[in-house]
Order: sequence, then structure tokens, then C-alpha cells
Amino acid sequence: MTRVPYQDMFDEFLRVLLKCGFRRDRAELCARLFADASLDGVPSHGLNRFPVFINDVRKGTVKIHAEPVLVESFGALERWDGRHGPGPLNAHFCMGRAIELARQGGMGCVALKNTNHWQRAGNYGWQAADAGCIGICWTNTMALMPPWGAKERRLGNNPLVIAVPRPGGHVVLDMAISQFSGGKVQIHRTSGEPLPVEGGYNREGRLTRDANEIAESRRPLPIGYWKGSGLALMLDLVVSLLSGGLATHEIGKLTETSVSQIFMAFDLARLAPGSLSARVVNDVVDNFHAAEPIGENSKVLYPGERSLAARRENLERGIPVEPSLWQNVKEL
Amino acid sequence: MTRVPYQDMFDEFLRVLLKCGFRRDRAELCARLFADASLDGVPSHGLNRFPVFINDVRKGTVKIHAEPVLVESFGALERWDGRHGPGPLNAHFCMGRAIELARQGGMGCVALKNTNHWQRAGNYGWQAADAGCIGICWTNTMALMPPWGAKERRLGNNPLVIAVPRPGGHVVLDMAISQFSGGKVQIHRTSGEPLPVEGGYNREGRLTRDANEIAESRRPLPIGYWKGSGLALMLDLVVSLLSGGLATHEIGKLTETSVSQIFMAFDLARLAPGSLSARVVNDVVDNFHAAEPIGENSKVLYPGERSLAARRENLERGIPVEPSLWQNVKEL
Repeated sequence: MTRVPYQDMFDEFLRVLLKCGFRRDRAELCARLFADASLDGVPSHGLNRFPVFINDVRKGTVKIHAEPVLVESFGALERWDGRHGPGPLNAHFCMGRAIELARQGGMGCVALKNTNHWQRAGNYGWQAADAGCIGICWTNTMALMPPWGAKERRLGNNPLVIAVPRPGGHVVLDMAISQFSGGKVQIHRTSGEPLPVEGGYNREGRLTRDANEIAESRRPLPIGYWKGSGLALMLDLVVSLLSGGLATHEIGKLTETSVSQIFMAFDLARLAPGSLSARVVNDVVDNFHAAEPIGENSKVLYPGERSLAARRENLERGIPVEPSLWQNVKEL
Repeated sequence: MTRVPYQDMFDEFLRVLLKCGFRRDRAELCARLFADASLDGVPSHGLNRFPVFINDVRKGTVKIHAEPVLVESFGALERWDGRHGPGPLNAHFCMGRAIELARQGGMGCVALKNTNHWQRAGNYGWQAADAGCIGICWTNTMALMPPWGAKERRLGNNPLVIAVPRPGGHVVLDMAISQFSGGKVQIHRTSGEPLPVEGGYNREGRLTRDANEIAESRRPLPIGYWKGSGLALMLDLVVSLLSGGLATHEIGKLTETSVSQIFMAFDLARLAPGSLSARVVNDVVDNFHAAEPIGENSKVLYPGERSLAARRENLERGIPVEPSLWQNVKEL
């Protein structure tokens, strides 16, 4: 591992995106969203995934000039068509639009169809929280998990984000409905380290912590066994109904494109004026932090706390990168 | 186990509620909500819990004549005060109000504070789906689970419901964020049967399937380990911010009262006119059902499928009841 300054990583992404023909303002935002993922300790959807994204751009799967268009407005709820544009730009736009709607009526909800992988889900939660809003968003994906009691993949892992603003550091949950995200399984395949808890089945149908066995069987486990299986199904149903876009079973099996997403924002400046929301959130987080930890030297962490710590460290010391992956990007 | 006709159970609940002084229309709705829970195979929040509810009524924790009042309207989003009224009536009213808002603007969101235990969460999902709406609702609870990495209970198990209408049977997820609900743990304590998967810790801090050990340690496990821990925290933060009501750490440790809830509805008659939504949902469910099951004689079930099967059987054959619990109610 070497470390690369944030600005250098951003500049490199920007260079490649401009070379691909992105308009400057869109290239800058896209570069920032990828760099922010690595900065916050999620390189699986930052640096490490950037070449895959560029490949999709070059294949034409991602249409770089396409911008979302409004399909239908119901008031606080709007439907947009992402027209196969860059997933991160579409998602950032739609959370922005949900925030605008929330400024008007307390809440806004934007459903988006025909979009591409939004990369790091948490980005759009941080975006809402930075704007003083509660943000809730999720996406469907191609089929990645078997339903509970089944052998075949039929469910997306449908990442879900819930974000709440907090002056000392936002509280941001960013989770796939699989016990481990694809990125996490990949890291354990490379390192050979077992997963901390069972993450799926082996070929014999037994639960295992071995990431390679799970990749072979193609049977990762949803969180909470039958519960996550049901939750993943519901997230897919709701997002495809609200957006009018594709459901998981209709999304391509080889290339994940035309996914459906939903973005909700609630404006706390309207709902909890003054410092009320900060007080409410701080009280909850303080109570959570005060729980006696299991290990003597361990700490109970709220969702997003690790990201913020990574951001602070990486801004100061540079972002850790796998040298070969960094080299790949420099050669794009 | 003996079986009791639905009408008899309803009549018995109605008798007791009228005796307690409930207004007739409110007694009828409340009796129906309790009877529906047992009918659908959730006696833990139907017959079995009815005496606890009546006890709360007699203690005055539940104020039988209190009706929700509007605190603030932002358009599609409204805030209501439940004034410590009967939880099932308050919740039914607020989902109804969310449905009304959805009829106007596609979606409605009602946040409720100062309410009491809503009993069976799924009832309000079925209510939305029966009205042709997607329904999403959740509640916070008193502290029932330790955060991930901690020993002490600081998190509610904050049941979450997501419901989608479907002509052949609604798809309704009704789940606590703990791996097992309190009701389920209780059933296994009585039967002595181990839980099907690990459900919490024993006193030595090891994961266990023994419901008695979990009850002793007071450390049930959230779904997905750290993921459910984060999800439970977020659900509490969002519901307390939106409602302006109490968060889990403020809810009484001995008597659960003054909980906060949220109800969202999306009107599919407006969002997916004609038979479009039925087609979308049927396609997803058919694809889910078609997944090859693990066991030769097993079936892959969507959320709500088991409830509907129980309802059909129990309407025909009567609702199974524990005779002593049925006798308790008859003596109320």
C-alpha cells in the first residue's frame, strides 16, 4: 500500500473523464464522487472500481452526456428517467432534487429509472446530511442472492442508505442486504482471511466463512437469513413500482444496467428548527456510545463513524492505494 | 390447542373493550385488529397479548378516549400527537391518514408521537395494501438489544413493515430488527426447542440458539450483526426526528409507552394506473417463486404468504388458541 493525496486522485480521475469526453462540470462532480469513496475508506467503489466504470463508458453502456428528465410529478413525489447516464451523476442529481422538494414541503421523494450503478451508495446519504436533511435511498441490482430456502440467485443485494445530519459527524448507514457486499467478499478472496461471520453457502449447501467457497457456490447469505431475503424482495418491489423502471429479474445478468433507485429527503431546518435536531441526534448517539463495550479496549461505533475517521486520516496522510490499481488508472 | 371461530374471538374482545368503556366504533376496530393478528397466525400480538393491553388500559397507561391530533402539516408530510391513546387505533388512524394524503399527491407520510404499542405491526401494512397502496411503517420501542460490540441494551428492535398490494395475496414484510421477535423467543422458552439459528448471546458472551439463555443474558442479536445494529439506530433516529417524539433511550424501561411511529403510503392507482402494478408485482413474485428450492418438498415463500395461508385455514377451521389463554380472556 502506498498513499496518494486526495487532490492527486481527483486530478487523475478528472483527466480520464475529460479524455472520455465528459463535460467539465460533470467530469469534476464524477471525479469527486469516486475520490470521496476512496477517501472515506470505500475503495471498492472508488479507485478500485473506476476502471470498470470507464470500461462501461467506452462500451457505451454508460451514456456520458445523458441527463435525467422528469417523467411525472405528483408534488412531493417525482419520477425521473436516467436515460442510461452515469450512475453517480444521476444519483447525485436525484438526491439533490429530493432535497429541493424537501425545502418546499418538508419532504421530497424522487424515483429514478433507467440508471446505472451509483457506485458508493453512502455518497448520497452524506450529500443529504450535508444539506441538513435526513436522506433515505436505495437501489436495486442484478440478481446476486438466492431467496431464503432456494438455491438460485433471484434477489438483488439492493443497498440501502439512511443518513441523519449531526454537527460532530453525520450518522450514515450504507449497507447491502447481503451479509457481505461484493467488495468485501472480493477483499477476503484476495487476502484468504475468513469472513468474521458466516456469509453464504459452500457447494455442499453448508454455511461457510470462506469467501472463495461463497463465490463458487454463488450463494451469499442475506442479513438475518429469511428476514433479509424478504427485505431485499420488498426493496426491489417498491423501487420498481415507484420508478416505473426495471425490477431485479429484468436487469441484465452479465452487465448491470437500467437499475431503479429511490431518493427521499426530509428537511430538518423545517421539521426541527434551530438546534433541536442536533440535540436529538446527539442525545441518541451519546447514549449509544455510552453502552459498555464487550472488549476492554473496544469502542461501540455508530454508522458513519469509521468513514469519518478514515476521511480525516486520509486527508492528512493520503489515501491508501494498491499500487497496481493506481497504476492502472494512470494508464487509462 | 383448541380452535375458536373468528367471530367468537372478535365478540369476546369486543365485550371486554366495551366493558372497559371504549366507544362502540373504537371497540369494534380494536377488537378486529387483535382478532386479525390471531387469525393471521400472529397470536403473540393477538389473543396472547390482549390481557396485557387490557391491563394497560386499566392502569391508565393507554387512554381509551384519546384520539390523535394534528400537530403540524407540511403538505404530503404531517405530524400527529397520539396523546397516549390505544396504539392499534392510533396506528390504524395514521396509516389511514397517509393513504388519504397519497390519494391526493401520490404519497403521504404521517409521523406520530406519544402513542402506545401498536401490537401486530403487519396489520397496518395489510391496511395500506387493501387500499391499493404501498405501505411502509415502523415504530421504535424500549431498549431491547445491545448495539453491536456492546453488552448493554440500548437499541429498540424497531419493527419495520413494507407492504405491496397484489391481487392474489399482498406481499407484506413484518419484521423486528432483532433476529427473533420477543414473541418468538417466548414461544421457544415455553417449548424448549432451540431457535433455528443463533439468536443472541449467553451469559458467557457466546452466541447461542437457546431462548432461555438469551432471555437471561438480555442480549438478543440484531439481524446481520453490525448491520441490524446500525439499522435499528437509524430507524429510531428518523422516527424520533420526524415525529418530534421520544427516542428509544427516552422510553420507559419498565412500561413501554410514548413510542414514536411513521407511516408512509404510495397510491398505486395514481402511480401505476390500470393493471400495471398487478403485472409488475406478479412478475416479481412469480420469478421469486420459481427459484429452485433447497429441499425437495420445500417451497420458497414470499413475505405475507404464510399469513394468508393461516388466515384461510383459520377462517375455515377456527383460530388455534392455548385454552388457558382463551379462558383468561373470557374472564376479563
